[in-house]
Parts: sequence; structure tokens; C-alpha cells
Amino acid sequence: MERTMIKNLSEKIGQEVKIKSWIDVARNQGKVAFFDFRDNSGKVQGVVFGKPEIEETAKKIRSEWVVEILAIVNQRPEKAVKEEVLNGNIELEIKDIKILSEAEIPFDLNEELNLDVFLDNQPYSLRSEKPKSVFKIQAEIVKSFRKTLNSLDFTEFQAPKIVGGDAEGGAEVYKIDYFGSEAGLATSPQLYKQIMVGIFERSFCVGNVFRAEKHSTSRHLNEYTSMDFEMGFIEDHNDVMNVFTKVMQGIKNDLEENCKEELKILETEKLEIPDKIPTYTLLEAQEILEKELNQENVIGEPDLEPEHEKLLSSYVKEKFNSDLLYVTHYPVSKRPFYAMEDSENRGFTKSFDAIFKGVEIVSGGQRRHNYENLLEGLKTKNLKPEDFEFYLQAFKTGLPPHGGIGFGLERVTQKIVGLDNVKKATLFPREINRIDRLINK
Amino acid sequence: MERTMIKNLSEKIGQEVKIKSWIDVARNQGKVAFFDFRDNSGKVQGVVFGKPEIEETAKKIRSEWVVEILAIVNQRPEKAVKEEVLNGNIELEIKDIKILSEAEIPFDLNEELNLDVFLDNQPYSLRSEKPKSVFKIQAEIVKSFRKTLNSLDFTEFQAPKIVGGDAEGGAEVYKIDYFGSEAGLATSPQLYKQIMVGIFERSFCVGNVFRAEKHSTSRHLNEYTSMDFEMGFIEDHNDVMNVFTKVMQGIKNDLEENCKEELKILETEKLEIPDKIPTYTLLEAQEILEKELNQENVIGEPDLEPEHEKLLSSYVKEKFNSDLLYVTHYPVSKRPFYAMEDSENRGFTKSFDAIFKGVEIVSGGQRRHNYENLLEGLKTKNLKPEDFEFYLQAFKTGLPPHGGIGFGLERVTQKIVGLDNVKKATLFPREINRIDRLINK
Repeated sequence: MERTMIKNLSEKIGQEVKIKSWIDVARNQGKVAFFDFRDNSGKVQGVVFGKPEIEETAKKIRSEWVVEILAIVNQRPEKAVKEEVLNGNIELEIKDIKILSEAEIPFDLNEELNLDVFLDNQPYSLRSEKPKSVFKIQAEIVKSFRKTLNSLDFTEFQAPKIVGGDAEGGAEVYKIDYFGSEAGLATSPQLYKQIMVGIFERSFCVGNVFRAEKHSTSRHLNEYTSMDFEMGFIEDHNDVMNVFTKVMQGIKNDLEENCKEELKILETEKLEIPDKIPTYTLLEAQEILEKELNQENVIGEPDLEPEHEKLLSSYVKEKFNSDLLYVTHYPVSKRPFYAMEDSENRGFTKSFDAIFKGVEIVSGGQRRHNYENLLEGLKTKNLKPEDFEFYLQAFKTGLPPHGGIGFGLERVTQKIVGLDNVKKATLFPREINRIDRLINK
Repeated sequence: MERTMIKNLSEKIGQEVKIKSWIDVARNQGKVAFFDFRDNSGKVQGVVFGKPEIEETAKKIRSEWVVEILAIVNQRPEKAVKEEVLNGNIELEIKDIKILSEAEIPFDLNEELNLDVFLDNQPYSLRSEKPKSVFKIQAEIVKSFRKTLNSLDFTEFQAPKIVGGDAEGGAEVYKIDYFGSEAGLATSPQLYKQIMVGIFERSFCVGNVFRAEKHSTSRHLNEYTSMDFEMGFIEDHNDVMNVFTKVMQGIKNDLEENCKEELKILETEKLEIPDKIPTYTLLEAQEILEKELNQENVIGEPDLEPEHEKLLSSYVKEKFNSDLLYVTHYPVSKRPFYAMEDSENRGFTKSFDAIFKGVEIVSGGQRRHNYENLLEGLKTKNLKPEDFEFYLQAFKTGLPPHGGIGFGLERVTQKIVGLDNVKKATLFPREINRIDRLINK
């Protein structure tokens, strides 16, 4: 007999079915044993009664045992129907039980756990309804990211993670022993995706990146999934922002379409991503902060404080019903060497941050595309062109005006779902003291 | 004026258009300048004639310069029409030229290059028609892999690349300095995808994996893209093979549908992935090799030689018109600790290799799912359970019978396209002496 997925059981009332599942709950009441069965599609209740040949087996079974069940799908008496839950109108009358795996559990799946206990026990704790929903949503986000970009003629590529020396001079690079030479782990696919503009014009990649940051806070991850795109033949950074708006609208729509149940379980707020996203230069944003939001000594600072990002988010949410805003024109000093300076606003770049639900989730902008101009960019940051020789070939041999963004899958998942710590939106998060388990030093 | 992509130009005969492109070829013939323009969608010819105000500019322009062009789309005279090429019926009459980027090129894009020169110059050499087609096909393969698995209720997840110590004891692990502790780079997402069976039942991931192999051959890569899936509640390894057959059929169909032009450019052979894939146990395969393919001393060996895989591939291609075959039941000694031993064929595992066009592209099979049985598996390989404590939790808390596969994106691209070296199917391949450029030791 073929397996029936639990969510489809109510189509088979009166029939005999085979299900394969975990035991979500086992309740033994003398001559009757009740079970909640759980598979990837949902839950259902079943009962063993008046079947002496399986009573022994039924008595042994505990939570998280894995079983194969033969049963009749019975309609519940009207007064026992629970309209609001899946399979609330049926109950399985169990005919036979086959045990596929036994289990011993450290705590109940519904227990509230502190973060360390949750992380220590992920192979088990992730089975719980809420984290499982978080990672279903995460899968949908990354799928939607690719779908939108594919529909806009972007081509995916695979960026390498082992990279040469620490060219940009950041302290955040993990070193690896590469056959006796020193190599590093990529902190971003930036240089490769710019190269890919020369090949495909529009390109994207999704992959892990690595930051050797010594902080362990609710915002930090030492390894995360970066979603990146880069597009050629743009007029300026506004073209990049327009594509990113489409990405976010796609994510909103796909989640509402395909993750209804998960959004309900997590009690998420409805997302608002209007067609016209509120957009300010850094200076305009600072003026709003001082004049309308009672902040002091903000104008002229090179960047926004996290607190400012929160205030601006609330401001545009209230005023324009948008969960997203763009802040453009950060100063050259605050942006990487490849950021394009605005020729009409010297000292400032055609760059932007996307602030989503109070937090910066994206950095992006137009890049320097002319070889000589890029060399100047390197010079302003005291970087050596010879360390960028491979990358510079793309510019020497002709690259169009281009720009792009990178954004963190875990961070955006966290904000959409409304979690207080990005680690709760990360499968197997790496932090300074943890690789799966705590590291004993 | 909006940009028109080059492939759409023939819909605009008689109209003025704007294109943005690279100069593919520039031919200056005194008073007339001819150009081939190239964008991501195709090529078109254009001419500057009798326009003194742009003659100077036209004369300067060389291959790979990036330009924005205003032009009239003219129908060619009938005798000049080239039916067989894109835009063979039109020519652009150039009205204005704006130079977006200049370029200086090391060699002509159509030049045949040896592999080292090709790799040294990838930011440029990848723009050539053939490699560009290879990586378009690669993008379609990975997209198709995900599409098939999504349609079969698999959920994507992101596997970490930074892993703890070298638990399996292989020599192929890159070591990284993790804040003073030693960590490694994942050689496979194996342990995590088995854990994910407990969360989603069916799960897949695509990401880079790392092998510190000191060989540099046409088959080796030190970093490659692994496509993996794992599925719960299987009967045995046949369920896994059936899903993989669907993956390969999906790839065949999607390539034929979406990469017609690229397959033509690369002159690939039509793929044959029948519904019933020829399947042999290792012993049966060895018997065929001895009895029908004139090989000696094969029966009883623990594995197949590369030459045997080639012979078996030709055999099933001729006999069953299949580019794919499965060989099952490799001995326990040759498979990892988690491979499920066949209780009816002791000493042999419910594992398989998929051999595609002469080469093994996939290892897969059913895994040990019972905790005690898995501990036995670790014992047979002299591995310590305490090194696998995190992973083992998944089994202690109940995991269903499951199995899966991993396969290399670059290897399958290579075989589909028919390349002699896997590095030609790898963007920015890492090898012992190369990270982008050769490493000087």
C-alpha cells in the first residue's frame, strides 16, 4: 500500500490507509492508547482500542518514535470535531503498527528553551513547529530571490569561497592553510560578481560567506548566506534599487502565497513593500532625524546609528506604510574602494543602504566601472593595484556601468519573522565559541 | 529612449533604437566603419557612413569597448541577407555613439587558448561564446535540480561550511584558524542533510565543498559545487535512485527547452535518460565486464576502475540507449560509516554509484538510521562516537529510514557539454597551484 501524507487523510474517510510518521504525543490510558502522529505535512490523532495483538507494541511507544501505521480513517462524532485544526474531523483507528526507529528525547518539543539549549540540541530542537516554520520561510525567501532575478534575465553563477590574500586589508578574514601557502575565506563574492557583469551582464549568486568577527551578539554571525546580484548597463544606483524593490515584493508575494501556514504559526506582521519606496540622501535622512524626530548632532555624521535606522523605519512606516526605505549618498570614506563617487556631489557615493523593519539589510550601489577611475578608488583606500590584478582585468578589457547589492538571508529572515536574535534564523550558526557545540578552549 | 536588446532588433525595422553593447569586432575601411555589436542577447552588425560628426569617435573604437548607440534598423538588401544567423536580415545605420568604457585586450576572443592562458585571463576569456555557453548551461542545470526537487516536496536548506575537527579522519580537510581553535572546511554537507531529514523529511542543498587533494589532474578540483539531497521514509536505495533519475530527466528536458542556442554552440550530443535506467550490482557489473567486455580479474574487486566505468557506459548506451547506469552494492569496506549494510547480502551496502557518460557523477544510497546500528558503523571504521555527538542526536531522538546522494555540478556540466577537463566547467577553479592566478611559492 502507498503511503498517504497526513494532510491528505481527510480525503480518505472510511478507507484503510498507510501513514509513516513520528509520534508527536503518546497517551496511554489503560486499555486505550491515543497518539498524535506527525509527518512533514501535518498531524493527526489515532487510537488503539480492542486490538490485543498490538497492545504491547502500543504501550512501548513514546514521543519521537518513528512508525508505519495501518489504519482506518474514521469520521469523528460531530461533538468531537475540531473545525479549526487540520484533520480535526477525523481520527485513525489503528490496525497495525510497525516501529521504524525508537527514540529517547532530552525534553518535550514544545518546551520553551533558552538559546544555548536550543542550539546545543538542534538536530532535535529544530523539529519543533516554530523553528521548522522559520526555515521553511527561509527556503521560500531564497527561492523567491532567484525567481525574481531569473525573470529579469539574471544568470546564476557559483562564486569561489577560497580566495587569495587579504586584499582589502580587513581584519575579518579567516586564514586557511592552502598547501603551505596562506589563503582566505571569502567575506563577499563582490569581486567575482563584478567580473561576471562582463560575461552575463546580469548575474547573481547565493552562497556562504565568512566573517572572522570576534563579537558574539544577537546581530553577528561568523558564517552566513549572502544573496548577491550585479547588473550591467545601469544609469545609476536607482536602477539597482528598483530591482531590489522587485526582489522584496517578490518575497512578500511568494511568502503570502506559499507559506500561509508558517506565517500564521509565527504570527508575523503583514509586509508592506509599496511600488514607490521612500528614498532619502543621507543628509535628507539626517535632517528628518533632527527636525522631525528630535535627534541631535546627526547632520554631517558619516553614517547612521542603529537607533537612527529604527527611527527612520518607524517614520516611513507611519507616513508611507512602507517596511522598506533607501538611504543614498554615503560619503566616500565610509564605502569600499569600488563605490562610484557622484560627480555632482563630490565626496559622496552613488551607494545606498536598504533599511527594512528598523535594520539595514542591504548595502548596494553603482560601482566604478572605468579602469582609471577604479585605480583612483584603490588609491583613496591605500590599496595596492597589484593585489587586485586578476579582478582588474575585467575593467581593463571593458566593463559597462554597473551596480548591485548583497544581502544576508538570515538577517532578512529574522526581520520578516520577527525574531530577537539572528541566530534563531540560522541553521547551525557559527559564533566565536560555537561550531555546533560550544568549543572548549 | 529605452534600450533595445540586440535579439529584439529585427522587430524594429525602420525605427530608431538605442542599444548598449560591447564592440565584438571593429573594422575601419577608410570612410566606412563596420562594427559587430554584442550584448547578452546576441550580435548585430552596424555601419558608420557619411556622418562626419561621429567619424572621429568611430575611428578610435576597438574591440571590447563598451558603447551606447543610437541607430536606424535597416533591412538588408536581399542578396546580403544571412538567413542562418541572428539579425542576418538587418544592419544598423549608426546615428550617434557614446563611449561608456574603453578597453585594451590581450588577445582576440576567438583565439584558441591553452588552459593556463584561459584561466589566467578568465575575467576576459570567459566572455567568449563557448565558455559563456558552458556557464549558461551550468546555471540551468542547478536551476533544474532545484525545480525537480521542489516539485517532489523537498525543502532547501543552507549547510555550514565551517565544521569542527576532522571527524571522519580523511586527509582531505582544509584546516582553518578559528579564533585560536582549529576548525575545518566541509568536504560534504552529509551529516547536516541527514539531520535535516528529521526536520523536513526531504531536504536538499547546493553549495561549495572543499577537498585538500594534492593532485592536479583533469578530474580534480579543490573547491566545487555539491548538489545534495536526502529523503526520509524510503524503502531502500531504489527510492533514491528513482528520484535521481527524475533529476537527470529534468536537466535533460530543461536544457533542451531553455538552452537550445548554447547546446548548438557547443555541439553537444543529445542526452538519453530513459525511464528505466540499467542497474547492476557491483558483482553483476563485474560479470558483464569479464564475460561480455573482455576484461580480466575484475570479479571480487571492491570497486570499479575508471576504465571499467567507461566500458559499462558504452555497453548500456549501445544496448539500452541510456547515458546513465546505476551500480549498487559496493562492499562495506569501500563506503562511509553511514552506509546501510544489506541484511540479505552481508558485507555489501545498499549504496549505488551513478555512472554518466563514462564517469561516476554520483555516490548515494540508503543510510543507517537506527542509533545502535549507526554506532556499529562508526566502529567498523574505527571512528569515535564522541566526535559525532552533535550529529548522533538526530538518531537518538528518532530518524526514519532515509537515503540520498551528492553530485558535483562541475563534473556533470563537463560531461553534458563534452569537455576534456573539469576545470573548463568551473568558474575560477582552485587547484593546488592556483587561486585565480598561479600561486608563487
